[in-house]
Amino acid sequence: MKTIRYSNPADNRVELGILHGDDVFSVTHQVPSWTDPVPMWHALRALGITAAEAEAQLSTGPCLSFADLERQGRLLPPVVSPEVWASGVTYERSREARNAETQIKDSVYDRVYVAERPELFFKATYDRVVAPGHPVALRSDSQWMVPEPELCIVISAAGDLIGWTVGNDLSSRDIEGENPLYLPQAKVFARSCSFGPVLLWNTGEQRPEEWDIELTIARDGVIAFQGSVSFSQFRRSFATLIEYLRRDNPIQDGTVLMTGTGIVPPDEFTLANGDVVEIFIDAVGMLRNPVEAQVMSRSVEV
Amino acid sequence: MKTIRYSNPADNRVELGILHGDDVFSVTHQVPSWTDPVPMWHALRALGITAAEAEAQLSTGPCLSFADLERQGRLLPPVVSPEVWASGVTYERSREARNAETQIKDSVYDRVYVAERPELFFKATYDRVVAPGHPVALRSDSQWMVPEPELCIVISAAGDLIGWTVGNDLSSRDIEGENPLYLPQAKVFARSCSFGPVLLWNTGEQRPEEWDIELTIARDGVIAFQGSVSFSQFRRSFATLIEYLRRDNPIQDGTVLMTGTGIVPPDEFTLANGDVVEIFIDAVGMLRNPVEAQVMSRSVEV
Amino acid sequence: MKTIRYSNPADNRVELGILHGDDVFSVTHQVPSWTDPVPMWHALRALGITAAEAEAQLSTGPCLSFADLERQGRLLPPVVSPEVWASGVTYERSREARNAETQIKDSVYDRVYVAERPELFFKATYDRVVAPGHPVALRSDSQWMVPEPELCIVISAAGDLIGWTVGNDLSSRDIEGENPLYLPQAKVFARSCSFGPVLLWNTGEQRPEEWDIELTIARDGVIAFQGSVSFSQFRRSFATLIEYLRRDNPIQDGTVLMTGTGIVPPDEFTLANGDVVEIFIDAVGMLRNPVEAQVMSRSVEV
Amino acid sequence: MKTIRYSNPADNRVELGILHGDDVFSVTHQVPSWTDPVPMWHALRALGITAAEAEAQLSTGPCLSFADLERQGRLLPPVVSPEVWASGVTYERSREARNAETQIKDSVYDRVYVAERPELFFKATYDRVVAPGHPVALRSDSQWMVPEPELCIVISAAGDLIGWTVGNDLSSRDIEGENPLYLPQAKVFARSCSFGPVLLWNTGEQRPEEWDIELTIARDGVIAFQGSVSFSQFRRSFATLIEYLRRDNPIQDGTVLMTGTGIVPPDEFTLANGDVVEIFIDAVGMLRNPVEAQVMSRSVEV
Repeated sequence: MKTIRYSNPADNRVELGILHGDDVFSVTHQVPSWTDPVPMWHALRALGITAAEAEAQLSTGPCLSFADLERQGRLLPPVVSPEVWASGVTYERSREARNAETQIKDSVYDRVYVAERPELFFKATYDRVVAPGHPVALRSDSQWMVPEPELCIVISAAGDLIGWTVGNDLSSRDIEGENPLYLPQAKVFARSCSFGPVLLWNTGEQRPEEWDIELTIARDGVIAFQGSVSFSQFRRSFATLIEYLRRDNPIQDGTVLMTGTGIVPPDEFTLANGDVVEIFIDAVGMLRNPVEAQVMSRSVEV
Repeated sequence: MKTIRYSNPADNRVELGILHGDDVFSVTHQVPSWTDPVPMWHALRALGITAAEAEAQLSTGPCLSFADLERQGRLLPPVVSPEVWASGVTYERSREARNAETQIKDSVYDRVYVAERPELFFKATYDRVVAPGHPVALRSDSQWMVPEPELCIVISAAGDLIGWTVGNDLSSRDIEGENPLYLPQAKVFARSCSFGPVLLWNTGEQRPEEWDIELTIARDGVIAFQGSVSFSQFRRSFATLIEYLRRDNPIQDGTVLMTGTGIVPPDEFTLANGDVVEIFIDAVGMLRNPVEAQVMSRSVEV
Repeated sequence: MKTIRYSNPADNRVELGILHGDDVFSVTHQVPSWTDPVPMWHALRALGITAAEAEAQLSTGPCLSFADLERQGRLLPPVVSPEVWASGVTYERSREARNAETQIKDSVYDRVYVAERPELFFKATYDRVVAPGHPVALRSDSQWMVPEPELCIVISAAGDLIGWTVGNDLSSRDIEGENPLYLPQAKVFARSCSFGPVLLWNTGEQRPEEWDIELTIARDGVIAFQGSVSFSQFRRSFATLIEYLRRDNPIQDGTVLMTGTGIVPPDEFTLANGDVVEIFIDAVGMLRNPVEAQVMSRSVEV
Repeated sequence: MKTIRYSNPADNRVELGILHGDDVFSVTHQVPSWTDPVPMWHALRALGITAAEAEAQLSTGPCLSFADLERQGRLLPPVVSPEVWASGVTYERSREARNAETQIKDSVYDRVYVAERPELFFKATYDRVVAPGHPVALRSDSQWMVPEPELCIVISAAGDLIGWTVGNDLSSRDIEGENPLYLPQAKVFARSCSFGPVLLWNTGEQRPEEWDIELTIARDGVIAFQGSVSFSQFRRSFATLIEYLRRDNPIQDGTVLMTGTGIVPPDEFTLANGDVVEIFIDAVGMLRNPVEAQVMSRSVEV
């Protein structure tokens, strides 16, 4: 089952919908308190109902068009994640890329790559997250910015893997490259994070190891960069990442964990105002965001 | 003016109070919507009323005893900070301590020390914060933990310095020492952060550069470690920290920024279950927290 | 299926539970967002699951004792009803009683009895409702007060009959008797309304017309009044009451409608401080409330 | 001081503003938590600041035009009143009008007129209130509907008279006339209540007894009814109404009490779809609402 969240064109209310091809069936019209997948996920599990059964039951009534919602900018993050966390150095190519950024031999990236403990960091709160289709923003003090296309997992407070979505962990390579202690500044800023639009529910039957992640960056109508990676190159397990994230650290239902990137554009590439970033995982969906320069002035009050 | 937040013994409601010696005058009884200092701070500023005038006006009626509230465990963080951020390598001694933790020459701490950009990191959300008097908790997978006694500043969304409080940025030295990329895991965990109980309002007349911060760790009734530092050794300015924190990164009213530590116990010292940590800044107040081992099991659901 | 709401002795959190004999199975432990029956009712209906199926599925795990919860005063109203409405003159005996209160021939009660339009009035908001087991309160300016034992229906925003509970519409007979225009003052005051503790879910199989409502008022350990009425004497239909209540008047999910009383103590009877009122409907359950004098002073601020 | 509430054209956020002639100064821009007058009223009182002082201090910065806000339909009720209560038979003419509606000699209206206890009834919750400028709605099952133009008082939980506004207690005369027990149905329905747009703050200097209330009903561009009454004909006192309203009945801060009408159109007059109702009190302001037929279908779900 795939679900999305969107603002209904009729009344601007937030709804949860089931996605079938281009058809979107409103779950919220049938169960008003379900505007987010997590309460529904808990209910199905407790009631012993499979995602397929729920999907069959709830895919009724009038439906909206996904393409229309996308065109109208009405798609929302597929889950209200109170916090987004992220992981790094989880693919082999990622290590090489990061070593190039820093001057340190036997670098911190080399060491995390071989260590049992993964790299985990706080990426965003929900209000820093950009809805699918809306612009992510370049840090005003960085000259070297890249999207990080990532498979995201949605987790319950108890550590269950609820499902998958597509994420963009927009990052500043020069700020992080200057010093690993600047990682929070390279990662956390206004509109630095987007994920969605589709949540693919985990039924135990999916095979993420067979998925590919594709990144396409368009500039002035042509492809400025394209790359892909097989998720079979992922060097951690979801279970390990979840275990370390939750170790002595309570998380809330619906927390999103971005699992790291395996696609790194060449060193001379940096995002520019007006670019469009598309991240595609066949089994899940496409996340598309235009890129803008930050409009926050440093001196102007929020 | 000094304010605190506490749960009223009569009805367990959260209140904002003005602190005069041991007397606590309830602001909330007079203005029901003021259970947090930030709305009051905005109102006083807009109305052109000084903290001293407000204090004189509102210090009326029956009062509670601060010592009683403390003894009953009723003190709360002095501001509902949606996020707590922290800074590092802001005192000279801090750099030396960190270099000892890591094996890297020309270390990341050396480099941040001399750089224009400070180290800033996400420390906690409000629900990870421990109230004054309540126990902070040791990470279950760390063998080397220390309190970091810090002067905290409370900031408005627009970057105003609302006031100061006392903070404890409990940290794992071995996890951070293993790899700077593990800093979030060394810093962010359940009950790793406490601040308060007093908020000293910024009137422009305070001279933080003349303040001393004192750390005392008691174990089995005797002092296990004691140290102090003059805030004159602070090598950043509040304005610079706030500017970098807010650069392209919207924060909310009442955000707390811990400004880094200048007191580091000797390398052989680690906190133990049952210790009591006291952090004292004469002009502000005393923050006291006992220390406990984490009670979260890794395998048990939250 | 019968559900209750209660505050869990372990952590004081509000929970929804399924009641089997004395066993209470926490629904909230299994579906954290279900602390009220209405979201669960919507979900079951949309998923095509019967109450019996849900009950079988969710009646697992450790359970609490209803008798213990009752003894500890932890029972809550079985639904968070944003509004409680009530109806009058719905049983034949009720009309006679009301005529006795007033001096008017061809009284307003006679006329409503024979009219198509029922009497409906606003009874309480949720914060005026007393939890089962807790004291209802006598109006300080009334000398003639009675409980009105009533079958209550719980309604969805769309007018569905979700289920039944037991209610006490505490009323002042002298204030209403003085003038029908004083009805709101005779009916709406602090702690004038209680319902619960059990919600019996409507499955279409219940036969309310076969139910009896019994009222027992105990004073100083002996029965001061006892009466009963068969619901077969009810002269309106639920559908008609709901239709008039919702006519041009949007109500919210979980609205409670008290359906009027058919038991009226003799004219010389008035409730007294210390009385205990028990209302019993065999198929639903027992509502018990002690009676207190109001403690609100008229001149003291709330 | 006069305040209004409105939705800001720039971002659709709700704001509290001070009204000077046509100028609206945003209070909310200066004190973000003040989107309603009640928290501001509490603060001023506790700080010992007069309304005039606050007005002088806060009437700064850019301002909006009241006429523009009105034209754009952006005015809101001037206070978020959790409940609106109303009073009846408070003017001499009102009694006569009501007697005409009913067939009862020595009617209930006659009796309440001479009694110590006033008539008080629940009129609306905030979500049943229509914003100024927006249409009130005729009950679909009434053939005789009238506006009731009323001076409204805004009350604190403790019974303080915070200020005055203008109100329209839209009522069905035939439903109430059929039976006083139908009063709730004659009074409470969707969009049956409007008040505002101006809140005149009570400073103790106003003389309501010198005010006139004027009602004008326009139909097809001509005046269909016009009438006025002097508030000197009001036969109750605010203090008495507040005392009875709060007697054993806790109310919340910002409760609105409509004080009854003294203007009754002739018996042959009923409101019609498309009428425009204007109620004017010179010292306070003008409330204008068009009139519509209800669009709620009885059988369609809300």
